[in-house]
Amino acid sequence: MKKVAILGASGYTGAELIRILLNHKKVEIAALCANSNASQKIEQLYPHLIHYNLPILQKVEEVDFSKIDVVFGCLPHTASQETFKKILDDKKNSHLKIIDLSADFRLENISDYEKWYEHEHAAPNLQPQAIYALPEIHRNKIKKHNLLANPGCYPTSALLPLIPLLQNKLIEISDIIIDAKSGTSGAGRVVKQGNLFCEVNESVRAYSIGKHRHIGEIEQELSKAAGEKINIDFTPHLLPINRGIISTIYVKIKSPFKLDDLKNCLETKYEDEFFVRVIDGDVNIKDVAGTNFCMMTVKASNVVGRAVIVSVIDNLCKGASTQAVQNMNILFGFDEKEGLEFAPIFP
Amino acid sequence: MKKVAILGASGYTGAELIRILLNHKKVEIAALCANSNASQKIEQLYPHLIHYNLPILQKVEEVDFSKIDVVFGCLPHTASQETFKKILDDKKNSHLKIIDLSADFRLENISDYEKWYEHEHAAPNLQPQAIYALPEIHRNKIKKHNLLANPGCYPTSALLPLIPLLQNKLIEISDIIIDAKSGTSGAGRVVKQGNLFCEVNESVRAYSIGKHRHIGEIEQELSKAAGEKINIDFTPHLLPINRGIISTIYVKIKSPFKLDDLKNCLETKYEDEFFVRVIDGDVNIKDVAGTNFCMMTVKASNVVGRAVIVSVIDNLCKGASTQAVQNMNILFGFDEKEGLEFAPIFP
Amino acid sequence: MKKVAILGASGYTGAELIRILLNHKKVEIAALCANSNASQKIEQLYPHLIHYNLPILQKVEEVDFSKIDVVFGCLPHTASQETFKKILDDKKNSHLKIIDLSADFRLENISDYEKWYEHEHAAPNLQPQAIYALPEIHRNKIKKHNLLANPGCYPTSALLPLIPLLQNKLIEISDIIIDAKSGTSGAGRVVKQGNLFCEVNESVRAYSIGKHRHIGEIEQELSKAAGEKINIDFTPHLLPINRGIISTIYVKIKSPFKLDDLKNCLETKYEDEFFVRVIDGDVNIKDVAGTNFCMMTVKASNVVGRAVIVSVIDNLCKGASTQAVQNMNILFGFDEKEGLEFAPIFP
Amino acid sequence: MKKVAILGASGYTGAELIRILLNHKKVEIAALCANSNASQKIEQLYPHLIHYNLPILQKVEEVDFSKIDVVFGCLPHTASQETFKKILDDKKNSHLKIIDLSADFRLENISDYEKWYEHEHAAPNLQPQAIYALPEIHRNKIKKHNLLANPGCYPTSALLPLIPLLQNKLIEISDIIIDAKSGTSGAGRVVKQGNLFCEVNESVRAYSIGKHRHIGEIEQELSKAAGEKINIDFTPHLLPINRGIISTIYVKIKSPFKLDDLKNCLETKYEDEFFVRVIDGDVNIKDVAGTNFCMMTVKASNVVGRAVIVSVIDNLCKGASTQAVQNMNILFGFDEKEGLEFAPIFP
Repeated sequence: MKKVAILGASGYTGAELIRILLNHKKVEIAALCANSNASQKIEQLYPHLIHYNLPILQKVEEVDFSKIDVVFGCLPHTASQETFKKILDDKKNSHLKIIDLSADFRLENISDYEKWYEHEHAAPNLQPQAIYALPEIHRNKIKKHNLLANPGCYPTSALLPLIPLLQNKLIEISDIIIDAKSGTSGAGRVVKQGNLFCEVNESVRAYSIGKHRHIGEIEQELSKAAGEKINIDFTPHLLPINRGIISTIYVKIKSPFKLDDLKNCLETKYEDEFFVRVIDGDVNIKDVAGTNFCMMTVKASNVVGRAVIVSVIDNLCKGASTQAVQNMNILFGFDEKEGLEFAPIFP
Repeated sequence: MKKVAILGASGYTGAELIRILLNHKKVEIAALCANSNASQKIEQLYPHLIHYNLPILQKVEEVDFSKIDVVFGCLPHTASQETFKKILDDKKNSHLKIIDLSADFRLENISDYEKWYEHEHAAPNLQPQAIYALPEIHRNKIKKHNLLANPGCYPTSALLPLIPLLQNKLIEISDIIIDAKSGTSGAGRVVKQGNLFCEVNESVRAYSIGKHRHIGEIEQELSKAAGEKINIDFTPHLLPINRGIISTIYVKIKSPFKLDDLKNCLETKYEDEFFVRVIDGDVNIKDVAGTNFCMMTVKASNVVGRAVIVSVIDNLCKGASTQAVQNMNILFGFDEKEGLEFAPIFP
Repeated sequence: MKKVAILGASGYTGAELIRILLNHKKVEIAALCANSNASQKIEQLYPHLIHYNLPILQKVEEVDFSKIDVVFGCLPHTASQETFKKILDDKKNSHLKIIDLSADFRLENISDYEKWYEHEHAAPNLQPQAIYALPEIHRNKIKKHNLLANPGCYPTSALLPLIPLLQNKLIEISDIIIDAKSGTSGAGRVVKQGNLFCEVNESVRAYSIGKHRHIGEIEQELSKAAGEKINIDFTPHLLPINRGIISTIYVKIKSPFKLDDLKNCLETKYEDEFFVRVIDGDVNIKDVAGTNFCMMTVKASNVVGRAVIVSVIDNLCKGASTQAVQNMNILFGFDEKEGLEFAPIFP
Repeated sequence: MKKVAILGASGYTGAELIRILLNHKKVEIAALCANSNASQKIEQLYPHLIHYNLPILQKVEEVDFSKIDVVFGCLPHTASQETFKKILDDKKNSHLKIIDLSADFRLENISDYEKWYEHEHAAPNLQPQAIYALPEIHRNKIKKHNLLANPGCYPTSALLPLIPLLQNKLIEISDIIIDAKSGTSGAGRVVKQGNLFCEVNESVRAYSIGKHRHIGEIEQELSKAAGEKINIDFTPHLLPINRGIISTIYVKIKSPFKLDDLKNCLETKYEDEFFVRVIDGDVNIKDVAGTNFCMMTVKASNVVGRAVIVSVIDNLCKGASTQAVQNMNILFGFDEKEGLEFAPIFP
């Protein structure tokens, strides 16, 4: 049994990792860290976890990482860089596999990080060891790395359909528009007015238009797929639901290709992937909520030469914690589906 | 006091008209029609209307329209054409002002109607008398007509920002993308699986991609504004809220204009309009729900030369019933705000 | 036009008063106070109020109350006592009519206040001038007072059905059980983890069991109605909706009375009341949300000799702000329905 | 691997059984029946099940039950009696274990069934073979039966706390009041106006007051526990959430017992039960949704000698499908937790 530590276990992605790992046959949760709640039981923060015999919450510095095999980082950005730098500076932790769910290691260029996060990078020497880890796309590279930058939620929903289309040069690299909508858990358990029930319920708003931090990450990966610099339009919206992202993506089909070429491309790319599915009907957030699945559909636009692709994922799962477990499965050579095959709760 | 009849009073837009007209100082509700519920009290369908002394539900054929001043049509499409044809065939009803909330008279070309609604037009002789009646845009023409085609909900949210920009040639006519999201009341009180609470709640889906009937109406009005044929990308989504539409609109700014030119154009156009407001912050469905207001914001895209416009309305209000009352106010020369000034219920 | 000041305009009940008073023909909003937001515009806190020309937010001490006719207090408890004491200590404010929406003046005995609110009463000399002001019950007394304690939300929903039954000695004074459920706006705009969207949504919890502060207020008024000391079981629940309270009340019918005697009693009591309605069908929060209405129904229990009464109100309206306006209408001799006749928004 | 057939697989409890059994290590789904959807794939009804290789939907009469080990019945009431009678009339099916999730075999007296369901019992000869199967209460009897009546959702939430208290004579048998609130999935996937999103959302209503069919079942089991006939007050409410029941139960403590005796009784009863947990804090539907857990809390009432017990379950899980699987585990001697240990999805 591999031993797992979760840093930042008090947040939603941390709690979600616990849920998933409790059902994973090849790992055990050896340490849960939450600095400001250290010495509490996890069920004081999350009563629904009372049924499991979980470790007491600790401070990060209390953990002996030499006895840990894999660390999941669910810390706020910059905290993640600082923490992992400190851990890896200790030689006896060099064996550690690290899967970081924050944005801290996702941007390959230090300057991109500093542009989008408006903060100096705290571990620039570590950055080159990190890899952007979207399993269906980077599986082979992932196996060879020990520091994985787990993709963001919005990026996952956009990259899974767009990367194969760009790699195969089926769509124009200009005029890619990603209209994304996320459940409120994407904001974490942060206590602020805009996240209050009465403010979110029965409403939707677009936010951070033209400047959301995930733009950097999406553009980086799309540009790599296309082999040239891509700029996208990306607008996130806040939905009055707990979980899930639906991304509606508008693209121009490259001549002489047709809609069916896009469909075929994605179907072929994902036909052997358990977690990604291209369907003919409409996709529905509900059909993937709580799981590692991504469902997508490719539709003709009303405008000649255009297509609309819609993808759905769960922001806390495929957009964070279950994808992190999928990455761990790859790292350790486990069955990639281990612990992740369960169906969504419907309704 | 002008006498009002509502046809199709059993649906949500009919009930909404009742709510609004109960507070209107210059009209009285003289007849409520709902053929399959004829002879029932409205509170048997809508218990919340028990406090008001409303007419018994009737069949359309039971109403003496010679005693009515204005009729609101809330019938399903095609039923509307047939019903108004029959009413207007009777000479003693020629004084009637008709505000039709269905789609039946919105498309100026009979062939467009038949293309989008896949049904023969049942009153082609009436069509030329009808006018597409978006008050802030067509106010002067509205005054001179007796048969108003009240705009659809999605179209209202898209046309209010786009028409002034196209009239002033500030944006490209190609590559206009409207990503729209609507509350479930847009589907009416129709009993079907897809509208069940458990199916809609905690989910969002895109539907009728590339083929929603409102595309015809939006393209017609945008083409008139631009003076040339426009094709748009339009994707509607179903939201787990009762009311409200948010439309996120992606446009290309025409050279040499800048974002501020778009902003100025809309601010100027709407500075004297009570119901339409351009703001700097993010717009929120909640801030207009239950009212005749439209709020919009114009933002820079991440992509040079592009802008994102977000508009919010209430689909049953500015997208249907309150807009119909606004139109009635124009028709009768009432203060256009009469009965419509109330603020949204927040939260 | 009477001049109104609202203290605590930044909270939900303050904003709700603004919504209502904007449509009231006999008053104007002369001052809005919100100490920590002083000098801001109200639309900075509530963008949906941007359409109205409202006074800038002020500190309480900046208001010249000699020019104000009526003050609505929407302050937290104890702040209310202190503030009104200070205002009334100034002789030139002795004309003021005060309607306090806090709990500060609801409990007639200082000791009851101190027991339930665990805080010394800051204005004990004012308390005797105050009256508990439930319009349908205390209308005549209200007219003669200048300091009204506007009832709490849960108490309003319970007292309207129970007081007439106790006054007429139709039910046992023991074994009264009030199982109440409230929308989340009852918690105000207070920023805390338990009110976050993700924590409230898709859940319900009972809280403050056996010790909610509204017990004191309910018991006081029921005891007065019965002429003897009454203890009740009261359990509040938090609902994942914005507005509304449903109280399910279990009572024992006093021999030799029958269910119909209860029904008749309530129907008779409320037959001339516009805002309170006894119906045969099931009551629904949605049918009163956003309004000053209370709907109730009286049903036979499965157990012989018992009845179940269900009442619904909107916690921010009949449970707070619209009831305060109804009280103001009584104080000034206006039509009691002025500004309050509008129907709920449905759906 | 035991072979499972699910009758009525098109409903929510059927789909829920599929979700659970997909993760169960000792059974395989051998047949899915849904007469009106026969020959369709389950993913045509439930797209979220597309990832699993499930049997085509069949008619019941097409199944060879001699090759099936256990049948879950998710049919409407009376259909269940008729169907199982027909199946068991065939001698080669006598080995079958049947777990019926309908109400058809829950009432021991035929006359009780006919009173509450207003319909003749279609399989009176089978009734004596059936046992009411609440695992934590009837575990030992369950092992010896082949026809299990799986308890109703509301009854499960009420019986788990009340049966031990009555068995130990700690509470009065009169004046037991159960105020229960359920998510909308309790109504099934039935298409009717009252279950539409817009009608349920932002509302709560009490329904079937004093006459809900689950009263018969609750009274039967409580009477058996107490050894004398018990009548209860039971009021169900419809909540705007997908899943979960919260039951708030009001009881009188029998002299000379105290609140702590109730607590101790329940803690002792359930200390070795994985799925039932007595906690000190408030219970929350969210903390059990999607799982087989029941959480309960015992609180002092404001009234001397009274207590309030609150319990939460998921209506489709512990109130239906996961409890059915728990019963199956008992029947086959599997680990009772097999397939059921997963944590709720939070948030």
